[in-house]
Amino acid sequence: MDNFKKYIVEFIGTFFLVLTVGMVTLLPGNGVIPAIAIGLILMIMVYSGGYISGGHYNPVVSLAAALSGSLSGNLLIPYIISQVLGSILASIVIMTFCELPAITTCPYSLLQVFVGEVIFTFALCYVVLLTATTNETKGNSYYGLAIGSTVAVGAFVAGGVICYGAFNPAVAIGLFNLHISCMGLTLLTIFSNIIGSILAAYTFKYITK
Amino acid sequence: MDNFKKYIVEFIGTFFLVLTVGMVTLLPGNGVIPAIAIGLILMIMVYSGGYISGGHYNPVVSLAAALSGSLSGNLLIPYIISQVLGSILASIVIMTFCELPAITTCPYSLLQVFVGEVIFTFALCYVVLLTATTNETKGNSYYGLAIGSTVAVGAFVAGGVICYGAFNPAVAIGLFNLHISCMGLTLLTIFSNIIGSILAAYTFKYITK
Amino acid sequence: MDNFKKYIVEFIGTFFLVLTVGMVTLLPGNGVIPAIAIGLILMIMVYSGGYISGGHYNPVVSLAAALSGSLSGNLLIPYIISQVLGSILASIVIMTFCELPAITTCPYSLLQVFVGEVIFTFALCYVVLLTATTNETKGNSYYGLAIGSTVAVGAFVAGGVICYGAFNPAVAIGLFNLHISCMGLTLLTIFSNIIGSILAAYTFKYITK
Amino acid sequence: MDNFKKYIVEFIGTFFLVLTVGMVTLLPGNGVIPAIAIGLILMIMVYSGGYISGGHYNPVVSLAAALSGSLSGNLLIPYIISQVLGSILASIVIMTFCELPAITTCPYSLLQVFVGEVIFTFALCYVVLLTATTNETKGNSYYGLAIGSTVAVGAFVAGGVICYGAFNPAVAIGLFNLHISCMGLTLLTIFSNIIGSILAAYTFKYITK
Repeated sequence: MDNFKKYIVEFIGTFFLVLTVGMVTLLPGNGVIPAIAIGLILMIMVYSGGYISGGHYNPVVSLAAALSGSLSGNLLIPYIISQVLGSILASIVIMTFCELPAITTCPYSLLQVFVGEVIFTFALCYVVLLTATTNETKGNSYYGLAIGSTVAVGAFVAGGVICYGAFNPAVAIGLFNLHISCMGLTLLTIFSNIIGSILAAYTFKYITK
Repeated sequence: MDNFKKYIVEFIGTFFLVLTVGMVTLLPGNGVIPAIAIGLILMIMVYSGGYISGGHYNPVVSLAAALSGSLSGNLLIPYIISQVLGSILASIVIMTFCELPAITTCPYSLLQVFVGEVIFTFALCYVVLLTATTNETKGNSYYGLAIGSTVAVGAFVAGGVICYGAFNPAVAIGLFNLHISCMGLTLLTIFSNIIGSILAAYTFKYITK
Repeated sequence: MDNFKKYIVEFIGTFFLVLTVGMVTLLPGNGVIPAIAIGLILMIMVYSGGYISGGHYNPVVSLAAALSGSLSGNLLIPYIISQVLGSILASIVIMTFCELPAITTCPYSLLQVFVGEVIFTFALCYVVLLTATTNETKGNSYYGLAIGSTVAVGAFVAGGVICYGAFNPAVAIGLFNLHISCMGLTLLTIFSNIIGSILAAYTFKYITK
Repeated sequence: MDNFKKYIVEFIGTFFLVLTVGMVTLLPGNGVIPAIAIGLILMIMVYSGGYISGGHYNPVVSLAAALSGSLSGNLLIPYIISQVLGSILASIVIMTFCELPAITTCPYSLLQVFVGEVIFTFALCYVVLLTATTNETKGNSYYGLAIGSTVAVGAFVAGGVICYGAFNPAVAIGLFNLHISCMGLTLLTIFSNIIGSILAAYTFKYITK
């Protein structure tokens, strides 16, 4: 049952991604560290598991891959389940070490979250599809660096400024479980991630086909 | 109409470049972040769109590519138009989120701006031509890292010190639209970028042909 | 006697790894520097010596490589001896320059150290095995970047927070020799590293075979 | 006269290296920036000019390359001259922008400078020879990243702590011209660089031949 190995890889990678996001966000005052650490762990997991599962660790990256033809459609739901389970396990591990903050209020406007999450989820899916799923760039060694760095730039530019900087529903769920994001904006974040992903998939299909 | 796909890629990449430059410059007090974020987003976009359009996102990189023979001359004007449109859209998006500063006065001397912009635009075009347009380095995975890092080093060494650190007329226009640079030095920046680009193109031709 | 050259490479690499860990940990107040410097030196040494010795510089990475079949079992003990000798020489060199702190008390709980060291040693061995020892990823240029960055992320997320951030018995011994870690937690660190390594080796075998 | 093109590349690369070193060292209070900027510019120039001249930008790297057989011996002197001229031009450019500090006194002990410069010059030459001059690693895309990062780690660990962190006579001359280092320690730095280079060349020959 070969597909089960892909689910394990997606589970492990998303676990480490959300573990890193949660820990660096909850640690006090550390400037440049969160964006760098999050970008690096995504890069690491993309390079490690990429050739087995595609290295998505993000439901809307899997969605974009399915829409553009590089992920078989019947794997989409099990991928998403694996990613969400990895996110939940990460939250549980963090809770055993860190005291969670009080339940948060919503700090950003709806428009800010929508635009911030759509723009950088678009960027993330656009980069994944162009660097990791085309024949013209097959065998390159930079795809993980480009993909991880996109999340780092999104975190520098928009994360904590106009949105939570999730760009990933599995991360959004983790941030909610850890009391970092509020319910309403978490749902808006997930919705915005889906929009960004669909826009990227169709842009990709237009410019490459 | 295949060339139109190249223009789309140049438009998207320049949009993200100027969006990042503008946001990190307008955000308060963040030390190492602007140079790192700007270098990373350029790297990301070069890796993503490089095999489609060349991944310039910079009118004077397109100029250097045209002068040295890797860009067809009749694409130069549409490339520049696409880049400037991407820059303008980025400024508009930023204006919806950030309050712009008051109109700026010119903080640098003419000589400082000229030398700073010429030197690092030369470096940028020299690196692009040597790592991304020669047969001897074809298929390498480092060109985006080298190109993005050049802008980061320019930002560390000269940006905000002796010049605005644009090294790119599309960025210079974005900085002017966002009230970060003044009119006179913006025009001098663009002129200096053109000089640096021409010097790099002829140096490249001399050392490689 | 070809294997002796491998031991020299492991000795040199571990020397530079522990030298860097010790120096950046003993230097006063430097935020982001330790994790970055440690990640970079591991990356450098992996890229430099990887094709000769495998570039482990870590007894439990050698253990995971032996368990999963990429290191011949009879090289395991001489590899570990070379690594520990490199660690000891690094401590001696540091002692000639830096005054050591007073003997330290144990700052973390047993559970924190166990979980922190197991999780990130697992990550490190998982990344090494997947990026540097499989046929499917042979010839890639990213393995060193992925491996070094794993230690940097572990240092950002867990090092100095819930554990010493060694993820490596040779480093743990170095930290003990330099009075940075206490005896009890050093032994627990080494035990946790072994557990993480074994878990990674069997996970790797399951998902790739 | 093909070799002259190599000298031009060495001249340009050393110019940018020393320009960066000088500017980031003279700029006030910037923590992590100098080591990162210096490592990046060396990486950039190695990737850009490597396939033309070897991308040394350092007299003792040229020496190590000559000793180990990857640089023709009769190119050593013209390489060194090109590098020193690039260093001098960089100092002159910096002097037109920055006021130099008062003539410096010698801040480190002779033993500290000797050990710090020997150890990291050894590391630098060892990394260059192993990643950029062997058949087994030919065509890799990581050599520039590894080489540039070595100087960054040396700057983090030893530069400004136990020595000036030159690891390069052309840089040492630049630091002296800019009043950053004193005469006596500059000469000792150059001597230590030569020793580190020779040790690395013979270590390399032993482990690879």
